[in-house]
Parts: sequence; structure tokens; C-alpha cells
Amino acid sequence: MAGNSFGKLFKLTTFGESHGVAIGGIIDGCPAGITLDFDKIQAEMNRRKPGQSAIVTQRKEPDTVEFLSGIFEGKTTGTPIGFTIHNTNQKSKDYSHIKDVYRPSHADYTYEKKYGVRDYRGGGRSSARETASRVVAGAIAKQVFPNIKINAFTSSVGTIHLEKPYQELDFAKTESNVVRCPDPATAERMISRIKDIKKEGNTVGGVITCVIQNVPIGLGEPVFDKLHAELGKAMLSINAVKGFEYGSGFKGAEMTGTAHNDLFNSDGSTKSNHSGGIQGGISNGMDIYFKVAFKPVATVIQKQDALDSSGEIVAMQGKGRHDPCVVPRAIPIVEAMAALVLADYSLLRKQEQH
Amino acid sequence: MAGNSFGKLFKLTTFGESHGVAIGGIIDGCPAGITLDFDKIQAEMNRRKPGQSAIVTQRKEPDTVEFLSGIFEGKTTGTPIGFTIHNTNQKSKDYSHIKDVYRPSHADYTYEKKYGVRDYRGGGRSSARETASRVVAGAIAKQVFPNIKINAFTSSVGTIHLEKPYQELDFAKTESNVVRCPDPATAERMISRIKDIKKEGNTVGGVITCVIQNVPIGLGEPVFDKLHAELGKAMLSINAVKGFEYGSGFKGAEMTGTAHNDLFNSDGSTKSNHSGGIQGGISNGMDIYFKVAFKPVATVIQKQDALDSSGEIVAMQGKGRHDPCVVPRAIPIVEAMAALVLADYSLLRKQEQH
Amino acid sequence: MAGNSFGKLFKLTTFGESHGVAIGGIIDGCPAGITLDFDKIQAEMNRRKPGQSAIVTQRKEPDTVEFLSGIFEGKTTGTPIGFTIHNTNQKSKDYSHIKDVYRPSHADYTYEKKYGVRDYRGGGRSSARETASRVVAGAIAKQVFPNIKINAFTSSVGTIHLEKPYQELDFAKTESNVVRCPDPATAERMISRIKDIKKEGNTVGGVITCVIQNVPIGLGEPVFDKLHAELGKAMLSINAVKGFEYGSGFKGAEMTGTAHNDLFNSDGSTKSNHSGGIQGGISNGMDIYFKVAFKPVATVIQKQDALDSSGEIVAMQGKGRHDPCVVPRAIPIVEAMAALVLADYSLLRKQEQH
Amino acid sequence: MAGNSFGKLFKLTTFGESHGVAIGGIIDGCPAGITLDFDKIQAEMNRRKPGQSAIVTQRKEPDTVEFLSGIFEGKTTGTPIGFTIHNTNQKSKDYSHIKDVYRPSHADYTYEKKYGVRDYRGGGRSSARETASRVVAGAIAKQVFPNIKINAFTSSVGTIHLEKPYQELDFAKTESNVVRCPDPATAERMISRIKDIKKEGNTVGGVITCVIQNVPIGLGEPVFDKLHAELGKAMLSINAVKGFEYGSGFKGAEMTGTAHNDLFNSDGSTKSNHSGGIQGGISNGMDIYFKVAFKPVATVIQKQDALDSSGEIVAMQGKGRHDPCVVPRAIPIVEAMAALVLADYSLLRKQEQH
Repeated sequence: MAGNSFGKLFKLTTFGESHGVAIGGIIDGCPAGITLDFDKIQAEMNRRKPGQSAIVTQRKEPDTVEFLSGIFEGKTTGTPIGFTIHNTNQKSKDYSHIKDVYRPSHADYTYEKKYGVRDYRGGGRSSARETASRVVAGAIAKQVFPNIKINAFTSSVGTIHLEKPYQELDFAKTESNVVRCPDPATAERMISRIKDIKKEGNTVGGVITCVIQNVPIGLGEPVFDKLHAELGKAMLSINAVKGFEYGSGFKGAEMTGTAHNDLFNSDGSTKSNHSGGIQGGISNGMDIYFKVAFKPVATVIQKQDALDSSGEIVAMQGKGRHDPCVVPRAIPIVEAMAALVLADYSLLRKQEQH
Repeated sequence: MAGNSFGKLFKLTTFGESHGVAIGGIIDGCPAGITLDFDKIQAEMNRRKPGQSAIVTQRKEPDTVEFLSGIFEGKTTGTPIGFTIHNTNQKSKDYSHIKDVYRPSHADYTYEKKYGVRDYRGGGRSSARETASRVVAGAIAKQVFPNIKINAFTSSVGTIHLEKPYQELDFAKTESNVVRCPDPATAERMISRIKDIKKEGNTVGGVITCVIQNVPIGLGEPVFDKLHAELGKAMLSINAVKGFEYGSGFKGAEMTGTAHNDLFNSDGSTKSNHSGGIQGGISNGMDIYFKVAFKPVATVIQKQDALDSSGEIVAMQGKGRHDPCVVPRAIPIVEAMAALVLADYSLLRKQEQH
Repeated sequence: MAGNSFGKLFKLTTFGESHGVAIGGIIDGCPAGITLDFDKIQAEMNRRKPGQSAIVTQRKEPDTVEFLSGIFEGKTTGTPIGFTIHNTNQKSKDYSHIKDVYRPSHADYTYEKKYGVRDYRGGGRSSARETASRVVAGAIAKQVFPNIKINAFTSSVGTIHLEKPYQELDFAKTESNVVRCPDPATAERMISRIKDIKKEGNTVGGVITCVIQNVPIGLGEPVFDKLHAELGKAMLSINAVKGFEYGSGFKGAEMTGTAHNDLFNSDGSTKSNHSGGIQGGISNGMDIYFKVAFKPVATVIQKQDALDSSGEIVAMQGKGRHDPCVVPRAIPIVEAMAALVLADYSLLRKQEQH
Repeated sequence: MAGNSFGKLFKLTTFGESHGVAIGGIIDGCPAGITLDFDKIQAEMNRRKPGQSAIVTQRKEPDTVEFLSGIFEGKTTGTPIGFTIHNTNQKSKDYSHIKDVYRPSHADYTYEKKYGVRDYRGGGRSSARETASRVVAGAIAKQVFPNIKINAFTSSVGTIHLEKPYQELDFAKTESNVVRCPDPATAERMISRIKDIKKEGNTVGGVITCVIQNVPIGLGEPVFDKLHAELGKAMLSINAVKGFEYGSGFKGAEMTGTAHNDLFNSDGSTKSNHSGGIQGGISNGMDIYFKVAFKPVATVIQKQDALDSSGEIVAMQGKGRHDPCVVPRAIPIVEAMAALVLADYSLLRKQEQH
């Protein structure tokens, strides 16, 4: 247990179920004296919130954050920042049809077997609604270390892949379309694919690429807490994630040493960057980039077999307003988790410098 | 700092540089009363040790573990298990040529920038020699939870991929060849590829697949310490790892929900297993399987440009006896890290059951 | 930073300032399936709340807990329990007189020097109001391990000491008087002393004794996390605490070995109990007992010199409704912290038993 | 389990039993670039080692530290410092008489009940021999933050108390006598008392006072990790400790607020220092001072009843060469634990300063 905290010095603990009174969290270890821009925090929330476009779930949740502590006269005080996001959309009856049913590829079955009891309303704790709290904390982390630039974008939807290297992309265009792919032509194909899949009552997976720039040299804590190991854990802790690779990734495993090695320039930068900005678990000042694979959302609006608590296979029909593809709304979550790791490791870095 | 511990309840802390007096570690939290089979521990060490075959580094290191505490009359006592592995091969002069030089795609540069000083002998702390301590701890973890079966094997060397699903493989054959691929025909091709690359003085990457069977339902600590998130971190903390995927992985991101969903059998098992044995971060009793991508070893026996500490680009020639492909010797390391995660999460599971 | 969590497996994180929107916390690691008695939780809150008697502060705060998560249909679900207690009494102007002033023996000065900013309203985070969250968590911990009996009581107020050994006391009488001393005659003297000191506008310190019974053998994690070391830390983390001793305590330092040693009965119990129920950091099944010393409350209703932020010594007059003696209201806090330690170590104990 | 680590950023993990191959530890998080004075480390070891004077145990153990890693060319490298101290004095037969016997007021009984097995040789893990590893780490911590001055001394032996306030003492005299009391006249009385008690085959308790000077303002992590709470835990984790008080301590509980409050000077220092250098859990720049109570050593050279594993009460006669009073040799241990806390909190402090 006790797996609901993330970070060592910049530490987020979250609570809350999708259909409880509220979700929220505590950020412990945020440095004092930071003037917070609350509009920016809400803007991140809006990127994640349901109902924002035609290709995401049509649920309406305002997702307004209330800060309860740790901020005084607009500034962080160094004490824990408590916050809540109330669940305005608690229609529990929507979920009565799954009370005794374990949906395929959901966490219903494992939660019940692990804990003996289960809050069956809409996934309870296993719902991705929990990630709203991560976005709050990530938005604050971004403000603590504003020099570090984090840009995530959609690089695949199903079999549609954005083939361009990130260096050829203009991140300013990411928010210009609802699928959050900075290449307009590819974005259009992706959107069209999601609309089709939605019509079928089906869902589709996708991949998010994240690029982190202006990272100081020296972040990362070998041997177990290597920077990419913590980034990997952060990403894999997000709902629906199936894989993580950084730098050359799985492709790198096909390469030879002479092709893969990043030769130095005289200023310490490197000519190529197969390393993905990290050597031996420590940032080297080059861009950090990684990919995160998301499976298709398990809730489909089709008839499917499920298991009930008495061991019967029962037909069930997915209802409700679910995302046909989780990737567009997961962009701010990936960025938030990256920001949490970078903030935490930046603080860890400080105490090493004698 | 303080990144040299892994695990919460079954906790390994390691120390040691490749060319110091010794490497070693402390295992804290190993349950009491376990009768240890020391031959099995040494057998795991032998799978990792240099010089074991024609396709790995020809360095000779016996890698004998000495246990200093925590074991009495052959049994664990519940107190910390301290152990050392002496470095018999401390020829420091071998490394004088890299004293002021940062080798490309090694951690020389980042370690020096981070810490201000660097033990330049053979990579120091960043050397994969540290993983010998992990293998010791993993071998003990396996003995604490012997029902859980962990089998890793080589599934790619460069562009040679083992295409068969793991269900068609006989894990008993993994150790029958030096590349540790349980499919003899593919193994032969892989071995031949490594021999060729070695002759060129070059290196090549590869992929390890790991399958964990007989895992009890209920392991995993959402929301941040999901079982696969911890496995991912464990793998990404191994030297040279560039990617991790479990279950359907990156392929799963191309699938639709109806194709990806694992329908239940009436006993709670599932017909397919795209989930990779984990739902919502909690084991569901099905096989856990994942892939780990390793980059090619950075040390090539060819002339390459490097950077020296005065900012000059200098030609350097890799020397010594290095692995042309890290994957065969990394198999026991992957298994060890998996065993550490499973042991830790098995202990965490115990205190949940009221 | 990040010092706002307590416990390893049963883990409380708190947030909140005395005059912010709300205080509250997250309990992570509470076992699933516990049916909670909310009246008992509120009853503990009522023992701590202001305004409950003539000898405590006359502030009126209802201190009603709102649970936001982790409980479903009356039972814990194994997921984090988030809760808030709203501050109904936010008269910030009451504190404008101390905005630029550091009160003697308060934390005003150290908070400002540490963090650079300070929430000056009523002590902010340093206020003992934070302990209300601990009482919530402790009340739940008591319900998770109901067999363990925890009884704290007032054993000194100033120089008035309860001299009887705890074995001669009837803990049922603790709540029969407002000072919470189970010896009625001594209680009367204590109450009278507090009333006198209150009239003078002064305050007085005191000591709380806590007795824990029915503790299973085997709780405690040597060598650093000995049971009494964690109890000591728990108590010393409570506002105004200056000392902790268990078993024979400081008196034991005056004794000889033959007098101090606790000889065994044949069932493993001991004839005497100078050890205080703990040997080598591990509970031995005998009663655990300890004393906690509280300094006098720093706010006195008299004119005192204070320091202002410009370095001037200024006269200030304490205002408001403060406790003349903190001990009666600290009883439930001591019990709560003890309950948190015992719950945490009981869970830690579970995973040791192979 | 897993209770063998201390500290967050400057973290010591220890291992080893009194009669195993070796004891030792790993220091993780020591900043890089510190030139270590190994003579000073050994000097601290010599203050703790047996056989150093007529009033301590006459066992002969050289207690020589071997460093295995983390130090290169005399400097710390920022990587974990592994070290061992071999047990030269492994006469296991000395302990055969206690194999099946639980000695009174030792940890034999609780260790066996907790773990099911016990290393019965000389106390095993529960032996104070483990503290040698703490002294190594503390000696390094002192060198990392050399400005902070830590002075511990014997302030009581049995009922003989050093009554002078520490301000009137000359700490340079502490090492001038074998009992380590800086007041020569009191020292003589203490030594004479210990010699008498030794002749009787008995033992006696005592108290150590520790004074920490030149502490920067701002160390301490409220609300749970207050500086004094961590110091208290550190001290209570030392073998035989029964109590801890800081500043005014238990005496402070008898005082009134007006007498106890520390009025400010205009430079932020205070006229009195009942607070003991800590306000609200944060150092205020004044001297930190505290007292630690040690019980009499449980091994007496007299016939005593013990319990055997079959439930029989058996007469046993303490043998061997034990300390008649633990306090003189515990001085460097108290200083070491204080140094570990201060080093850790100094590092924690660094990352708060934005």
C-alpha cells in the first residue's frame, strides 16, 4: 500500500475516486516564495478536461481546483499545498449495471481481488480522473522551474504515425488542433481516424512523444534513480500506458555501436542524440525525448462479454461518454508527470553542490 | 543523491566501483528463516560473469560473493544481509588513457559535470559491474518466493528477431546456448551475428524478453507504484537500457479496443493476455511479460573521436576486452531486477490482508 | 522539505494553516474492509477541540471532519482516505498586530528565516491546529487495530505531579474531569492551578503519561526504527513537546543493573517492567508506557518584548483566547500519534512472518 | 523490516552482528569533493572502542575501518561509500552458555519471538557493536559540515550529576579523563563510582549531554520531521537509551510561560535559551543542547535468573568483559548520530532556497 505518493523532495500525494465527493492532493516540498499564476494552472486543467472537443468524451466537468493551504498572498509558503477538485458529475446510477460485473481489461477484477471491496462507481480509484490532480501539481512544478521547456504531442493514433523528427516540428502548433499533433496534415488524418472509430463505438490506442529542453546538466541519481528510470516510472504510472522508450529506444537495440555513439562537439554537446539527453542516468544538457504508448480505451460502446462476481459470463453493453482515443487528453498528463520528475530531480541536484 | 537503494520492504542498497577494492550491497528486509542455497546464488553469478563464452568479454573475474551478516547457520535471520564481491582485476593502468577523456556515449562527461570529480578507472560507478550486486540480491529474492517463476531470454540481437510467441518456447533451452535464446535456430543466427560484429571491433544492441509466471493476484500498489511502473523503473535502471514495454506494448497502441480487450473465462483468467498480466497496476494472475531494449555497447575497438577535459576533440582507440553485445550477460540481471520487484511487492501485499 | 508525512505503510500526510481555508490530510495505506465508526472519530475530535471547558481556550471551532475518499458504503476501500476540516474561525484581522512581529518562543522568526515568507495569521502552519488532522488519522488507526489499548492522561501540571504508578489508576476516570487526570484529588489541584495561572494571564507546562496495553510481541524495526525511537519521534513532533522518556526513563539512568533488570516469569512476561514493554527496540508483550513533557504555551496575556522585522524590540500584548495549559487538549493528540505508530508497525510486522 | 537505514539525503545503512564476519555500512548521499581526513575518522573509532581504559570493557578490538568505495584519490566522489570493520574477536564458544537462554533485559527474547531465529552469539544484531558503523558515518558527516561543532560529555553517572550549566564548562577537557566529563572534580567522583560498581560485578546508568553550536538558522522540516524530533529518534535508536529531552526538557514542563519564554535581542538571538536552539522544529541559530538517558548495562557479573527456550527459569552467571557503565564509550556515538542528523538536514535545507 501507500503507493499514492510520487517524488522525493517535490512530492505529490493524491486521493479520490471518480464518483466520490472530491479528488485532490497534497504537494509537499514546493519551494517557498514562488508567485503562482493560477490562470496557467487552470489552462492545464482545461487541456485535460472532458468535453473540450468532438473527439473526446462529452462528459461535462468544469474541473476547478480549490487550493486550501500552502499559498499566502499569491505565493507559496514552503508548507504543503492542499487542493481539491470537486466531482460535480456524481450520477452513481449510471454505474449500477456494473456493480457486480468485472469489465474486460478494466481494473474491476484486480481491485476487488486485492482489496476485497470495490468502489464500483465508474472505476473508482482506478479511473483516469485521478490524473487531474497530477495536472495541478505538474502545472505548479512547471512554474517552479520555468526555464525547463516541456512539450508533449500526439505522434501516433492507431497505425497513423507522425514520421517527422521532432526537430522539424513547431510545438506552437500542437494546440492548434484537437488531437494535439503539431503537424497539421497528420493531425487531420488522426482526427478523421478517431471520428471513424467513435462512430463504430470502438476505441483506438496511440503514442505521445515528449521533448524536454533546456535541462541543466547533472540531473539524475544513479544507480537506481536514473533520470530516465524515474521518467519511465512516471509515464508507466499513467492509466493505459503500455510502453516507454527514450532516445533511440527500441530502434536503438537494432543499431551498432559506431552508428549509435553520439560524438562530442568541443563544447560538450553532441553531434547526434541517440542518448536522448541522458548518459549513465544523468542529463547531459541535450534534449531529452521519449515516447509513451497508450492502449485503446477498454470501454467500447458495443456488446461484450464480461464476468460477474458469481463466476458467470454475462453480456454487457458499454454506456456513457467515453474517449474514443485517450491520447489527446493525455498530453497534459504526460507533461505534468515529466514536470514532477524534473522538479524533484532539480531539487535533489541542489544539495549535491558543495 | 541517495539513489543507490531499490525497493521498499525488500530493499537493496549497492556500493562499489568497477576498479575499487570491492563492490557489494546490503539487503534489508529479507524475511527471517529462509534456508539459502548458496550454489544457486553462485550459479546466477556465473551466468552474469565475464569470460563465460566466446561471445562475451574475455575479462576473467571469478565474482565470488562473500556474505558478512544476516545469515546464521545457513538461514536468514531477518537482519540486514551485507555482502561483498572483491575486484580481482584492478589493473588501473589500463585506464590511464581515458583519465582526461570523455568517451562518446559513456557516462564520463555527465559524472564529471555532476560530481566535479570522477573515478575514471573503467567507468567507476557507472560501470555495469555494479549489476553483479543486483544479481546476488535477485538470487536471494528468488529463493524467498520460489513459486514465482521468472524466465528471461534473448529475443533480438540487432535486426535478428525471435518471432515466436513465448508460449511456443521451451525455457529449459535458454541456457543451452551462449546467447541465451531458447529457439536454437534463431540462437545460431544471433551468435553468428555477434561473432561478426566482434570481428569488426563493433558492437550491437538487442532485446530481452522476460516472462513471470505463477504470480499471485493482487500485487501492485496504485496509483503511482503500479506493478508495471516499478518493473519498468527496475529495467530502465539497468545499464544501456533504452526502452520497456509490457503486454501488448507499443504494438498495443496501434490496436482497437475490441481487438485489445482480454475477455474473461469464468474462472477469472482471460482468453487473450494483451494486458500482460496486469490490470490497473495490479497483477491478475495471468503471465506477466515484458521486453527490455538494450543499446549497443559504447566501447568499440575502432578509432573514434572523444572530448578531453580541456575542450579538445581527440582521437581515441577503444582497448580492452568488452562485450560485443550486452544482452547474453544481461539476462540474469533482468531476472534479478524482476525478482526484486516481485519480492518487494509480495511483502507489501501481505500487510494489506486484514 | 517534504516533512509533512508520518509512517511507512500506514502513512498520514497533513496540510493546512490555522487561518487558511481548511486543514486536512491523506491517510495512505489504511487496510481495506474496515467498517468505520464515525461517531468515535468525532468523539476524539471533541476531546481535542477548543472551547470544551473552562480551562482551555474559549475559541469556538466545531472541528467537523469531511471525508472525501477511500470510504465506500461505510468501509475503507484500501485507497487513500482524503479528509478536510474547514476553518470556520478565520478572523484574520485578529492577527494584524503580529504581521511584522516575531513573538518570543513562537516559530514566527524561524519560519520566516527558513522560508522567506510567512503566513502570519495565528501561527500559520506552526499552529497546533494542524494536530486536528492527526487526531482524525489516529482515531482511524485505533479502529484498525482495536485490540491495542491506548490510554493517555495528565500526570503533571507545573509542579503538581501525579505520584501514583499507573497500575493504581482507573483509566475510566480520565474523562471524568476537565484536566484528564484519572486521580480525582490530583485532578482538582491541577484544575485549580490552571485557573490561577489563567487569571494571571500566564501559562504553565505539564506532562502526559501514555500507557499502551495488549501490544503483540514483535513490533519494532531495529536498528534505527526501534519501536520506542519511532514513538519518541512521534511525540517530539507534537507542538510544545520538550522531552520523551519510556519505561524507567531518566530515573533508570540512576539505577544499577541488578535493580533495573526485569526478571522473567516462565511465560515470558517479566516481574518488573523497567523496560517499558520494549527490549532491543521490539515490543515484548508487557505494557508500553512513556512520558511526554510539554512546555508552557508561549502566548501569555501580558505585555512582553518582541522583535519586529526591522530589528526593533517592541512591546506587545498577547491577545486572543489561548490555552493556559496545553496538556488537557494534548491527551488525544498523544494517543493519536501513538496509534499511528502502532498501526504502522503492526502492518510492518505482517510482512515479516514467512 | 528494512529499519536499518537512517537519514533522507545523507543516508546510512548498516549491517552486521557482533560475532559475524564483519560489520559495516553504506553511506549514500555524501556530497562529492570532500577531502577526508582518515586519521580523524579512526580517532573517533578509538573513542568508542573497547579496552581503551580501566572503566570500560577489557575486550580488545582494533576496530579498523576499511573503505571499499566512494572515495578516489582521497576525495569523496558522490557515489556510495561502502565500508567494513572486521570482527577480530569471534570466540563463539564464549556464548554457547546463552544459546537457549534469554537473558533478562536483553533483546534475546524479543528477537527470537520476532524473527523465529536468533544469532545468539553475543547479542548478534542487537549488540551495541553495530554502533561502530554509526561512528564511521558520523565522523564523515562532521567533515562534510565542519563549521557545526558537536560536543557531547558525561553529565551523570548513576546519582552523581554534573550540576554546572554547559556554558561554564571547557569542552577541551572532556577527553582529559576516561569518563569524559569536562568537570575534573565531578569526573573523579564518576570514575570512582564506576570502579566500585565494577568491583561489585554490577553496572550503572548515566546521562550524556550534547551541545551543538554554530548551527545555521533554518534547519528542520516541520511538521513531522522537526529537527528535535529527528534528533530524538536518532538518540533513542542508540542501544540502552531510555529518554531524550532538549532545551528546558522535563524541567520546562514545570515552568510558567513568562519564565520560559526566550526574549529576543535585536539581532534575532535570544536572552535565554529554554528553547534549546529550536523553535517550531526549526533551528534558530542559538545553541542546540539535549540530554540522553542510558539505562545500566543489563549484563551483570552476578548470578541472575534467566528464561530458557523451554520455559524454565534457570540460574545464569554473566561472564565476559562488559562495560560497567556504557556512558563513556557512548559519547562518540551520541555525537555521531547528532552529526548524521545535522548533515542530513543541512542537505535538505539546500534545496529549499530558491
